[in-house]
Amino acid sequence: MRLDGDEASFGTQGDTLAPPEDDGNCGRSEGLRSRNSLIITQPSNRSIFSSRISAAAERVSFVVGMDEDELNEGDWPVLFIQLSELFHVNEEAEWRETARWIRFEEKVEDGGERWSRPHVTTLSLHSLFELRTGLEKGSVLLDLEANHFKQIIETAIDVEIANNTLRKELKEKIMNILQRRHLHQITKPRHRRLANTGKCSCCGKGASKKEPLLELSENPLKEQLRNRFKRKIPEGTEVANVLVGEVDFLDKPFIVFIRLRDAAVLGALTEVALPSRFLFILLGPKSKQRAYHEIGRAIATLLSDELFQNVARKAINTHEIIAGIDDFFDELTVLPPGKLDPTVRIQPPKFVPSPRKRQSMMFREAKPHCNGNTHHHDERLAHGHPHVSEELKRTGRIFGGLIQDIRRKAPWYWSDFYDSLHVQCFAAILYIYLATVTNAITFGGMLGDATDNMQGVLESFLGTAIAGGVFSLFSGQPLTILSSTGPVLVFERILFNVSIDYNLNYLEFRLWIGLWVAFYCLILVATEASYLVQYFTRFTEEGFCALISCIFIYDACKKMMSLADNFPINWAYSINDVTVYSCTCFPSSIGNYSVFNETTYEFDNISTNYSSTMLNEQPLNWSRLTREECAGLGGVLAGNSCDYVPDVTFMCFILFFGTFACSTIFKNFKTCRYFPTGVRKLVSDFSIIIAILTFCGIDAYYGLETPKLIVPSEFKPTNPNRGWIVFPFGGNPWWLCLLAGIPALLFTILLFMDQQITAVILNRKEYKLQKGAGLHLDFFCVGVLVIVSSVMALPWYVSATVISLAHMDSLKMETTMSAPGEQPKFLGIREQRVTGLVVFILTGVSIFLAPVLKYIPMPVLYGVFLYMGMAALGSIQFIDRLLLVLIPAKHQPDLIYLRHVPLRRVHLFTLIQFLCLALLWTLKSTAAAIIFPLMLLALVGIRKAMEYIFSLHDLSWLDDLMPEKDKQEEEDKRAKHEPDSVDSDDSELLYQEKSPEINISVN
Amino acid sequence: MRLDGDEASFGTQGDTLAPPEDDGNCGRSEGLRSRNSLIITQPSNRSIFSSRISAAAERVSFVVGMDEDELNEGDWPVLFIQLSELFHVNEEAEWRETARWIRFEEKVEDGGERWSRPHVTTLSLHSLFELRTGLEKGSVLLDLEANHFKQIIETAIDVEIANNTLRKELKEKIMNILQRRHLHQITKPRHRRLANTGKCSCCGKGASKKEPLLELSENPLKEQLRNRFKRKIPEGTEVANVLVGEVDFLDKPFIVFIRLRDAAVLGALTEVALPSRFLFILLGPKSKQRAYHEIGRAIATLLSDELFQNVARKAINTHEIIAGIDDFFDELTVLPPGKLDPTVRIQPPKFVPSPRKRQSMMFREAKPHCNGNTHHHDERLAHGHPHVSEELKRTGRIFGGLIQDIRRKAPWYWSDFYDSLHVQCFAAILYIYLATVTNAITFGGMLGDATDNMQGVLESFLGTAIAGGVFSLFSGQPLTILSSTGPVLVFERILFNVSIDYNLNYLEFRLWIGLWVAFYCLILVATEASYLVQYFTRFTEEGFCALISCIFIYDACKKMMSLADNFPINWAYSINDVTVYSCTCFPSSIGNYSVFNETTYEFDNISTNYSSTMLNEQPLNWSRLTREECAGLGGVLAGNSCDYVPDVTFMCFILFFGTFACSTIFKNFKTCRYFPTGVRKLVSDFSIIIAILTFCGIDAYYGLETPKLIVPSEFKPTNPNRGWIVFPFGGNPWWLCLLAGIPALLFTILLFMDQQITAVILNRKEYKLQKGAGLHLDFFCVGVLVIVSSVMALPWYVSATVISLAHMDSLKMETTMSAPGEQPKFLGIREQRVTGLVVFILTGVSIFLAPVLKYIPMPVLYGVFLYMGMAALGSIQFIDRLLLVLIPAKHQPDLIYLRHVPLRRVHLFTLIQFLCLALLWTLKSTAAAIIFPLMLLALVGIRKAMEYIFSLHDLSWLDDLMPEKDKQEEEDKRAKHEPDSVDSDDSELLYQEKSPEINISVN
Repeated sequence: MRLDGDEASFGTQGDTLAPPEDDGNCGRSEGLRSRNSLIITQPSNRSIFSSRISAAAERVSFVVGMDEDELNEGDWPVLFIQLSELFHVNEEAEWRETARWIRFEEKVEDGGERWSRPHVTTLSLHSLFELRTGLEKGSVLLDLEANHFKQIIETAIDVEIANNTLRKELKEKIMNILQRRHLHQITKPRHRRLANTGKCSCCGKGASKKEPLLELSENPLKEQLRNRFKRKIPEGTEVANVLVGEVDFLDKPFIVFIRLRDAAVLGALTEVALPSRFLFILLGPKSKQRAYHEIGRAIATLLSDELFQNVARKAINTHEIIAGIDDFFDELTVLPPGKLDPTVRIQPPKFVPSPRKRQSMMFREAKPHCNGNTHHHDERLAHGHPHVSEELKRTGRIFGGLIQDIRRKAPWYWSDFYDSLHVQCFAAILYIYLATVTNAITFGGMLGDATDNMQGVLESFLGTAIAGGVFSLFSGQPLTILSSTGPVLVFERILFNVSIDYNLNYLEFRLWIGLWVAFYCLILVATEASYLVQYFTRFTEEGFCALISCIFIYDACKKMMSLADNFPINWAYSINDVTVYSCTCFPSSIGNYSVFNETTYEFDNISTNYSSTMLNEQPLNWSRLTREECAGLGGVLAGNSCDYVPDVTFMCFILFFGTFACSTIFKNFKTCRYFPTGVRKLVSDFSIIIAILTFCGIDAYYGLETPKLIVPSEFKPTNPNRGWIVFPFGGNPWWLCLLAGIPALLFTILLFMDQQITAVILNRKEYKLQKGAGLHLDFFCVGVLVIVSSVMALPWYVSATVISLAHMDSLKMETTMSAPGEQPKFLGIREQRVTGLVVFILTGVSIFLAPVLKYIPMPVLYGVFLYMGMAALGSIQFIDRLLLVLIPAKHQPDLIYLRHVPLRRVHLFTLIQFLCLALLWTLKSTAAAIIFPLMLLALVGIRKAMEYIFSLHDLSWLDDLMPEKDKQEEEDKRAKHEPDSVDSDDSELLYQEKSPEINISVN
Repeated sequence: MRLDGDEASFGTQGDTLAPPEDDGNCGRSEGLRSRNSLIITQPSNRSIFSSRISAAAERVSFVVGMDEDELNEGDWPVLFIQLSELFHVNEEAEWRETARWIRFEEKVEDGGERWSRPHVTTLSLHSLFELRTGLEKGSVLLDLEANHFKQIIETAIDVEIANNTLRKELKEKIMNILQRRHLHQITKPRHRRLANTGKCSCCGKGASKKEPLLELSENPLKEQLRNRFKRKIPEGTEVANVLVGEVDFLDKPFIVFIRLRDAAVLGALTEVALPSRFLFILLGPKSKQRAYHEIGRAIATLLSDELFQNVARKAINTHEIIAGIDDFFDELTVLPPGKLDPTVRIQPPKFVPSPRKRQSMMFREAKPHCNGNTHHHDERLAHGHPHVSEELKRTGRIFGGLIQDIRRKAPWYWSDFYDSLHVQCFAAILYIYLATVTNAITFGGMLGDATDNMQGVLESFLGTAIAGGVFSLFSGQPLTILSSTGPVLVFERILFNVSIDYNLNYLEFRLWIGLWVAFYCLILVATEASYLVQYFTRFTEEGFCALISCIFIYDACKKMMSLADNFPINWAYSINDVTVYSCTCFPSSIGNYSVFNETTYEFDNISTNYSSTMLNEQPLNWSRLTREECAGLGGVLAGNSCDYVPDVTFMCFILFFGTFACSTIFKNFKTCRYFPTGVRKLVSDFSIIIAILTFCGIDAYYGLETPKLIVPSEFKPTNPNRGWIVFPFGGNPWWLCLLAGIPALLFTILLFMDQQITAVILNRKEYKLQKGAGLHLDFFCVGVLVIVSSVMALPWYVSATVISLAHMDSLKMETTMSAPGEQPKFLGIREQRVTGLVVFILTGVSIFLAPVLKYIPMPVLYGVFLYMGMAALGSIQFIDRLLLVLIPAKHQPDLIYLRHVPLRRVHLFTLIQFLCLALLWTLKSTAAAIIFPLMLLALVGIRKAMEYIFSLHDLSWLDDLMPEKDKQEEEDKRAKHEPDSVDSDDSELLYQEKSPEINISVN
């Protein structure tokens, strides 16, 4: 409620005020600048000087009083605000666009050819006060019915004249000045010339040519219609035109604020040919141009505020507009002078509070503090449980979860295919295909090692293709990529060793275990055990994810080390002794035996057709035989250079680190400043492919004999002693079929943990998946596939965290259209089945792609592995916290949990997590590996035990909370909140989504 | 002049206001929140609604009215502000420190164990209004005479009671509550326990033990005295204590602001045991704790403002305090709501406007705009000419400049020695020593190549040592490092070729040229020609510096390539053919001749003592000879492995890039977040040394035969045909002595440009050199050294830009003590003669250090070269502008010149600069190299010519202005300014020093 009477609320000039009463001292008070006074109304219920505890009526603020749904986004059109200022060039006046707003300010830079970067507008308080006074003094015309600019200003001027605030004879002059030509940023060619001549206006140069068009055009100009900026603005955007300028014929300011009943395109007034809704005109006497400019910015900023827009659109009289400004005042943040460089343009923030949240903030503040916690509490609860989603609710019926999963996913099934029509999917296929193939080869090789080639590379390819393909077609979450994983490999190795030790038929034993596992899986699906994943808090996920990432990194490095062993460098090589180095083949009886027995690159088949080529040479000259020939004829190599391979190791390491560095750099290329966004995005999407191709090219160009990818080229089991189908009986005693149930139990736990943790990570809320998860269905598929794999003696498959994350990462969608300064929003993932399916079909086909794939050097693939491991590791909060140990407190980033949890508690939490990881790693590497799955389960227990060490408050910031604690915690919070609330920034939850910065994210 | 009467200026409550007049509409206006009103006085002369053009009396603002010198920094003690709040724990009240200020806010984080990072305080406008009202309503006690806290609060309460604003019976209660124990961040052990029990106060746990000390201690606690924070605060700091809290016995707020006549240590009130000057106490009724907290922050922020401090210290009555707040209001910057995440803590900026500048800003704004340009103009002029310093003023007398230089530098002479006592100098010596030695070797080697070893590595060492040593001792700017430079090398090569072609005695010819050069130099010194450096604008400097940097980078890479040629890799090596590779020595008659003739690593002396060792073996088994033996006996090597050296090239490149990367990373380590500042600074200072040692260590560990640094170990001229002294006559016809004057002229120009550009760069204002430059003296020294070098046939020396910059960089000083959030200030360079002197002595001694230096691989040194070139290149604005071409306009950084110069003009400027550089580079590499010095001079002409393409306005932002233009430009600016001023941010010059971001800087 504003004060009535203009004189009371403003304008009593400084010198008319009575002098201060007790001013007996030496003239300092005379030094006080003379001042006008301004009365600002403040909400009394927030004032500490108001003794009344706010009545119910007071709580209902003007804005809050509106219907909730009126505030929904998209209800009101977006407002584009343009500030034009009057310039006097060569005695001619013209209007020039000097700034524009949608959410943030863009200013025309000095020289007039360039928009500044979007930035948060900073205003002086003074200019806002002036604006408020100005609106009170000037005319506010609401719902004016007019379609033409001329008509509008004529009406406005007439109103002012009627109010006796404007002399009649000035009408023509104002009309004339307002209808001068309006120049925009886009009308560049003309504008530039003018800008130049404008500069020289005083030197008398230029300014001779008469411009043909000096008045405002009635119709939009061609440039306006063609303006590319339009693409940045949503459909239906309306315009607010702010016109400010100084003229010589006025002696007091002329201020009008106009709202049109129907938005109309006002000729060439606006940069883009959009209908105008608001106009603000300020013309004033000379020599205050800077003040006018600031007031123009103030009204533009005001109009760019969603809440004020609301008020401006609905206000019925001036008082409501003024009340809107006062509401705006209440929300203002002020920066003390001298603490911030005022010329720095503040970057638009990543998160801005939505109007709805701001409204509820005001509402909350309006309520007395003592009983205002409910709202707050809701927020807390919401952040406490990211997982508890509809997918995990127990139905209580047998297979109820599975049936629900199918029901939920079925409607999406066809869209899973046509949603994949995007170039991004192509990049994803290439990337994930290479990762999968590499994985298949690596794990295939290791499995072959571990099981005496009972499962080799070929089986790995075949199994991956079958399992992955089936899973992609029928699973609940087709973004998941199946793969052999480290834990499974460990289990297989133990199984094989046991079989050898007790003289059992490995494959048959394995088949029975597989059948048991499938049975257990079925039970778990039937009992809807997947709902237990709610107990997998971030602590568990991070522990598991870190372990898997470490395995990736460790394997990549180990493989590289073994390459260095295979191609040893002669460190003691002396250039001077070049004549001394040699290596000759001798018949096997003599010489020291030093063949390359580590390199398993098969030379067997060569020796067979060797005899034929040898027929040409009559006397067998041993010294001229090559390594292969020598080995084929049973000779041995002797000499001081036999053991060494020059340069290859160095080349391998260059390829390895090169691929890793290249992938990392190109991936981060998206956030660098160079090149247009499109190019950067493309490079970033294809980063891994580019890195692989680049380093394959480098390798091929130099032609060193680096180890290459060897894909099996014949379709037959690696070990000739086995077939494609395993028979369940005959190899082992009958009771082993039952005994297999015990290891199967362990393996089921492993499978469950491995599968479900990955599933939980992939289905996290922040990925904004639209089509829902299908944890029961996924696990069911995995169970079925275990049967297939066991029968065909292929490796067992389970969701692979790292590759699946990479998969999702390569399918991220972001908004392409956003107002200047707004961050592109993460929209979700391209959820479809095609990428996965094609990847696995390609993997299957790869068996026949050997001629192409043989050009890929292994170190390049290990580099990709290293990259994937590092990328997954880098996205875990645990690592951030680990690094925190190294950062002195004062340099630590302003993380939200650091604001709420004492540093030592954070470190303690990290330490416990680290110890768990170390324990898991040790277990995995030692003989106790068989109980490894139990240890994973133990992570959940450890997390539970931590509730005795940490308060729930701390845990809620550092981790998620476990489900049953809900109620108790609720009480706790409520009780604890009172002493806490004074200085806690809990309100930040209203502004900042907790998830993006502190969860495992895809990159 | 404030309004008289409290009632008028505040406090009429919302509901007592008359309802809005024309309120005939549907209840929306009832929805308006009830409001209090507040009258803010605004300076009338700034208001657009005030019609009076400001009278002279108005301009004199309250602050400006104070004596200028009162505002000098250090005049007033720094103020440390502590905010304490009242907490109710277990029915006991206690005060806790929750935030503190010096310049920026540090907040106690949730949990109470941690200070937040210093940040700019953001306030709500509302809280400032409340504070203003509060001060008006409450008591303001100025110059209270009291030494004890109890005494102070007693007086304050008595005043309130006397004013009838407080009931008498509350005195005891308020006394009691204010004297509760005050807990600070430092009293950690107790505090933490309390914080914990505090949390559980409601659960009934804890809180059983009675604390022994619940009242405020009269004497400072041990923790206060020991507080390490004290080290951050300058001597004589005073304290302002802000106490806010809610109590249940008050029904309206109790507010007191107290200034003590004599600052007194008030027991355990403050975190650090410093005397308090100000106290602000706010106690109020329950349930408004958040509002009290905000008001506490508001007064603290107010008190942290320098200008308000001034007011608060000098104010005589409440009105002056209120006037100070109103002044503060005028300067406030406001941020619109919803545009900035309010939970983000704004980082302290790098530059803050000094109080003096803010004052003059206010003063400027207070003046009407039309005639207020003089101040502004001064600023422009000041930035226009960074060089025009006292050193460059012409005296008009012969040798006047030289004499003045000596006069100016003489008083500093002894301090040049004792100023070097700092560990930083040690690092600098090591770094620069290695750079100098590397330079000496590189240029020595190249000179030896070019002059048939007339000047070889040994001469290079000797010459560097003598010239550098002399220069360090006697020069005007001892931070300069002398070295052979690329341009000089080019000149020498041409000279030698001419001598050979015309059958002249090279050294004698060179001696005469040297004498002529010295003569010309003397003339240049006598005529004070160094004042011409004013024409070397940034354009010239950057062109030259970029050229030199490119030569560094190019040379480093070329050397590496030649290493790759020297140690060729057998790319076609096949692992299978290991038996085929061999290399054998044959008597020279047979075999294909393929000796390592490129590698010039001397094997000569070995062949001489070879015959003795060979005596043992009777039959000369050629095939068993090593490479050296073979060469010694005149044999030739034949075989398919003779031409190849395995692994060495790879190792070299690893060392090269490793050293470069390591230096770069460690250098930038200073700005990373990890590890304490001291460690980071140490690593950064020693980065090059660490990199060199690391890679020397790696090289030594693996022991590959990489090429090592070879330092001459015998002291004799490299070419046996020359002695240490050149005789001026005999070798050439007599007229050549005169003819030598012509090439000497060219060389003098080269010398002048090379020397003076470097000198200008080193003496730039932003390095804050205290001891002044000595351009005439420097050039005189160089001239004298040319004579010495010519007579002894040593290379000619001139200032080396890159190494000198590296030298200064390693001697940078920064403040170690700064208030939290303040950037460490660059204080200057450790100006002394010792580092240079020791470096050159070491260089001389290096001739005898061969056994140690021989472990340094050459690739490591080339890596250092690459680093130096890159570092110098990276510090040039030209490169920034070059990269700008690749950045889309909207991502471009907010550089100051981009705000003022249209982008295409910037690009055009860059293009011209680039073309100049390309031309220089081409010239340097071709036969026309002899006119290269003239081309350097031409750069100045080109820059001059650019004034026809670019406006002076653009050039003043992109470059410096040339001297004579001064007046014309002044006119120009004045004329041009009027139309420009409306939206130009020229005021930013008041805040931001132009220099640091856009000049060639040391790193």
